Amino acid sequence: MLKTAKQLLENISGLKTNMYNGDFLLTWDKTDDEIKATMYIAKILQELHKNNISTRVFDLGLAISNFRDNSTRTRFSFASAANLLGLEVQDLDEQKSQIAHGETVRETANMISFLSEVIGIRDDMYLGAGHTYQVEVAEAVEEGFREGVLAQRPSVINLQCDIDHPTQTMADLCHLDTYFGGIDNLKGKKIAMTWAYSPSYGKPLSVPQGIIGLMSRMGMNISLAMPEGYDLIPDTIDVAKNNSSKSGGSFEIVNSMEEAFKDADIVYPKSWAPFEVMKTRTELLRNQDSAGLKDLEQQCLANNAKLKNWECDEKKMSLTKDGKALYMHCLPADITGVSCKEGEVTKDVFEKYRIETYKEAGYKPFVIAAMMLLTRFPNTHEVLEMVARTANPRARHQ
Amino acid sequence: MLKTAKQLLENISGLKTNMYNGDFLLTWDKTDDEIKATMYIAKILQELHKNNISTRVFDLGLAISNFRDNSTRTRFSFASAANLLGLEVQDLDEQKSQIAHGETVRETANMISFLSEVIGIRDDMYLGAGHTYQVEVAEAVEEGFREGVLAQRPSVINLQCDIDHPTQTMADLCHLDTYFGGIDNLKGKKIAMTWAYSPSYGKPLSVPQGIIGLMSRMGMNISLAMPEGYDLIPDTIDVAKNNSSKSGGSFEIVNSMEEAFKDADIVYPKSWAPFEVMKTRTELLRNQDSAGLKDLEQQCLANNAKLKNWECDEKKMSLTKDGKALYMHCLPADITGVSCKEGEVTKDVFEKYRIETYKEAGYKPFVIAAMMLLTRFPNTHEVLEMVARTANPRARHQ
Amino acid sequence: MLKTAKQLLENISGLKTNMYNGDFLLTWDKTDDEIKATMYIAKILQELHKNNISTRVFDLGLAISNFRDNSTRTRFSFASAANLLGLEVQDLDEQKSQIAHGETVRETANMISFLSEVIGIRDDMYLGAGHTYQVEVAEAVEEGFREGVLAQRPSVINLQCDIDHPTQTMADLCHLDTYFGGIDNLKGKKIAMTWAYSPSYGKPLSVPQGIIGLMSRMGMNISLAMPEGYDLIPDTIDVAKNNSSKSGGSFEIVNSMEEAFKDADIVYPKSWAPFEVMKTRTELLRNQDSAGLKDLEQQCLANNAKLKNWECDEKKMSLTKDGKALYMHCLPADITGVSCKEGEVTKDVFEKYRIETYKEAGYKPFVIAAMMLLTRFPNTHEVLEMVARTANPRARHQ
Repeated sequence: MLKTAKQLLENISGLKTNMYNGDFLLTWDKTDDEIKATMYIAKILQELHKNNISTRVFDLGLAISNFRDNSTRTRFSFASAANLLGLEVQDLDEQKSQIAHGETVRETANMISFLSEVIGIRDDMYLGAGHTYQVEVAEAVEEGFREGVLAQRPSVINLQCDIDHPTQTMADLCHLDTYFGGIDNLKGKKIAMTWAYSPSYGKPLSVPQGIIGLMSRMGMNISLAMPEGYDLIPDTIDVAKNNSSKSGGSFEIVNSMEEAFKDADIVYPKSWAPFEVMKTRTELLRNQDSAGLKDLEQQCLANNAKLKNWECDEKKMSLTKDGKALYMHCLPADITGVSCKEGEVTKDVFEKYRIETYKEAGYKPFVIAAMMLLTRFPNTHEVLEMVARTANPRARHQ
Repeated sequence: MLKTAKQLLENISGLKTNMYNGDFLLTWDKTDDEIKATMYIAKILQELHKNNISTRVFDLGLAISNFRDNSTRTRFSFASAANLLGLEVQDLDEQKSQIAHGETVRETANMISFLSEVIGIRDDMYLGAGHTYQVEVAEAVEEGFREGVLAQRPSVINLQCDIDHPTQTMADLCHLDTYFGGIDNLKGKKIAMTWAYSPSYGKPLSVPQGIIGLMSRMGMNISLAMPEGYDLIPDTIDVAKNNSSKSGGSFEIVNSMEEAFKDADIVYPKSWAPFEVMKTRTELLRNQDSAGLKDLEQQCLANNAKLKNWECDEKKMSLTKDGKALYMHCLPADITGVSCKEGEVTKDVFEKYRIETYKEAGYKPFVIAAMMLLTRFPNTHEVLEMVARTANPRARHQ
Repeated sequence: MLKTAKQLLENISGLKTNMYNGDFLLTWDKTDDEIKATMYIAKILQELHKNNISTRVFDLGLAISNFRDNSTRTRFSFASAANLLGLEVQDLDEQKSQIAHGETVRETANMISFLSEVIGIRDDMYLGAGHTYQVEVAEAVEEGFREGVLAQRPSVINLQCDIDHPTQTMADLCHLDTYFGGIDNLKGKKIAMTWAYSPSYGKPLSVPQGIIGLMSRMGMNISLAMPEGYDLIPDTIDVAKNNSSKSGGSFEIVNSMEEAFKDADIVYPKSWAPFEVMKTRTELLRNQDSAGLKDLEQQCLANNAKLKNWECDEKKMSLTKDGKALYMHCLPADITGVSCKEGEVTKDVFEKYRIETYKEAGYKPFVIAAMMLLTRFPNTHEVLEMVARTANPRARHQ
């Protein structure tokens, strides 16, 4: 067996997980062991893939993708993850479907699940609705399985909702595990999760919420920074505070990017729309109030425009630990002078970390596949061991 | 070999089918043995799937989906069926294609078929055109195969046309076979195939036509009920009458939902637009006469609105055999108080049978896969036996 | 081993190729051996497929399709090719993606490549942009692979750009190899690559450019015919002239369809927009100048309308060698009286060669698969030998 795979398998042999036939919606609903298992399994899969070993564990089966907003990255990550395991992606295109014509969520969830192992859902546009929809779908297939409508109980995987973005934050955790030589080394390290200026408004809250929700479990010192009024969903602040206590880390909210950056080991400057704005936007979208939406957009852009100094530049980077903090971003970033006139980060800073951000993103397919493995097999460790031992070639060179 | 699979295989061993390299367009073009074989094979596939046995019979190959109108259910059923056998779905999106630019049907049919085993077509919007188009495609690939353009002759499978909806009616037959303990037990049972009120107009005729066309072969007593003027295509009435004579059943047309429901064992209340309306609508659509279409819609909705009592409620259900007739629907149903203000069926009646309608729908992927197996292999029985005997796991737990 | 496969394998055993981890963008960037290898491998794959032998060489992996303009044929050819080898197609839909929102080409190329073996790109609408974009994508994934972002370096395959259309011209070469009993027999044969009238304007230049660029390597006598002013990109004329010298063929430009057709063994009448028009159109499209575009269209259609005699009819065909030249077209053709009122070719001439044009198109999936094999494996000959020797069935009849 591949030596590196063997070592990684040892990491998961002692972990207790109870994820079979469940879903992966919010990281804070998973235990520490389950979080670690997800991370290590992602790395095993990446290692096997790198060594041309096939990670196919399904001869047949579907993975349903249900994207309610645009996405390049996660759409491809989900398709890549499905393919890694031998599942075929089928897209639930709500324009082509009859959902627009009054079909209930409960019925649709069953109609798409007869042959499905996994349902990946992205729904982050409506505050209060995305996570709720995912839970509704999970309950629907749970009932369908229980009632004998479905032969298997598909797992719902959150590809970003209004609350959390687990595939992104788990990929970020994998990245930090590599960069700092192990998540144990994250204890006591400072991460600045800060707001940043962007020429667009309305970016989702799930990344900052997800980051503070996950990294607060690692014993880290979290500095969440935003201009006054640019709050996240209050509940997620509570989650972060509780996690920090339990893990021996710390959590603070500051209103200065510089203060957050000071002595930080990791910086994650990313724009978002205030929680209150997203609430208002949701109502306006619901009422199809185009005039109201235009108004809101103007206000927000006007407010944002006063905060162009919330830009990650060389000067702010020099405030970090040895001036060498790891810059992170979920991509795509608004890069000043590259993708926009004024943005979240300057061209020079971004270019220094560009390849690192690509590597950060590169964990996503493997993270999603790990979530699939843990929720579709009760004995994930044995399954992975079999795959690593058999070492079927992915590309058949002979 | 799995005991249940063995028993089901015995059911098909004596049946004579001649479907290899043919198509599945209308159920009344198939013999009784071919109908039975399709049903039993669907059940074998469902049984194997339920027991985690892989039903892959293709290492490679494409299944083309050609949907000319919206669909969730059948789109997923087709993709699931293809995946069950190891075929990959490729969608012929006529917006992305050059068909809009004068390319002939004959040419396109060949251009998409070089690697294709199956072409699934839904085309039910234009009366007189859907079935015709499917026949045209079948003739095109038949010629391509004969002339050496294509290495294999793909089979065309009707995913709903203007005349019939075989994947739905065959799934309905599987459902009745389970519910009544065998299709022989359908002899002498009464089925009420009735019109029902709906707030939308223009629902296709293929389900009622398909139901009377298929169930009339089972020796059943069919009561087709609709308001005066809400006729089906006359030819399909003839098919049903002939089938009924031959199978020892009966066929009547009544203009009262209550009369049809009286002592019925099975009720299938579903809305449709009159045959004459669909004819007119086709001309207006062809001439792109938006004003005319709006007019027609107003008239139809006005006519429908006088018939809101054609609703399946508890009172009508109490008229059925022991008040316990099986309620069936192809979904999605217009459910009063759930998906619309006034509809085809009340909330209470539908809820009582909701799970049953999901199970009814659940046969569709297996029915389509059965149609694929019978048309792509001359020796379907042997192929299935091999699959059942080898019992490769679908999800590889060890 | 299949006798025909064995013979074809012998054809490639002596050929030297250096295509591993490279791209296939323009045929004139490939050596003679690489062109031959591509052609023979396409034929091996077609032969194996015809004999129900699976050509799967990947257990998993993605093939990305990136179509920036409409296509039926090539979209299906690419999906068929991927499926032939065991790769799953994932479509980069730039409407669904965030590319519209400022994401760089370089970043996207990496984001879609974590699990990808191949990226197929069609981009032919903007003169000067298509090929450039493909090169940009190739450079991006080359960097990603080098920097450790990607575990494999996906190959970019040109599915038509502004300059060349290699999948089409290589399919045409396969067709001629079959029709004339070997490409050596093409030496000294005359091919008339001529402009033809079409009721639409703005057809790409890549087919005539690709044809003269490839066929000039076969020692053929090429007669490129167009009305005055309907020039191709000047560089491609130079390529053709140079190739002709080297291969012992000849190359001329004439302004008469009849002159080109005279004693021709092969005719390829196809419409295109003048190089200068495409340049202007690109600028107008870039500036989103709808009025200017409408003007240009009027002018072009007016100019074209004076040239309706540039139609391939029986009279012109009678000028060819024994009146029996092979008529070729990449499809769809503008057929007078069938797909348009007046077009590129008459109904009678087209009908005579219709099946031949289908067979011509039928090589495309196999050509694309050959390009994939040569760029994804350093030892393509051994891989193919293994596939032919193992002879796994594609459809499992027992």
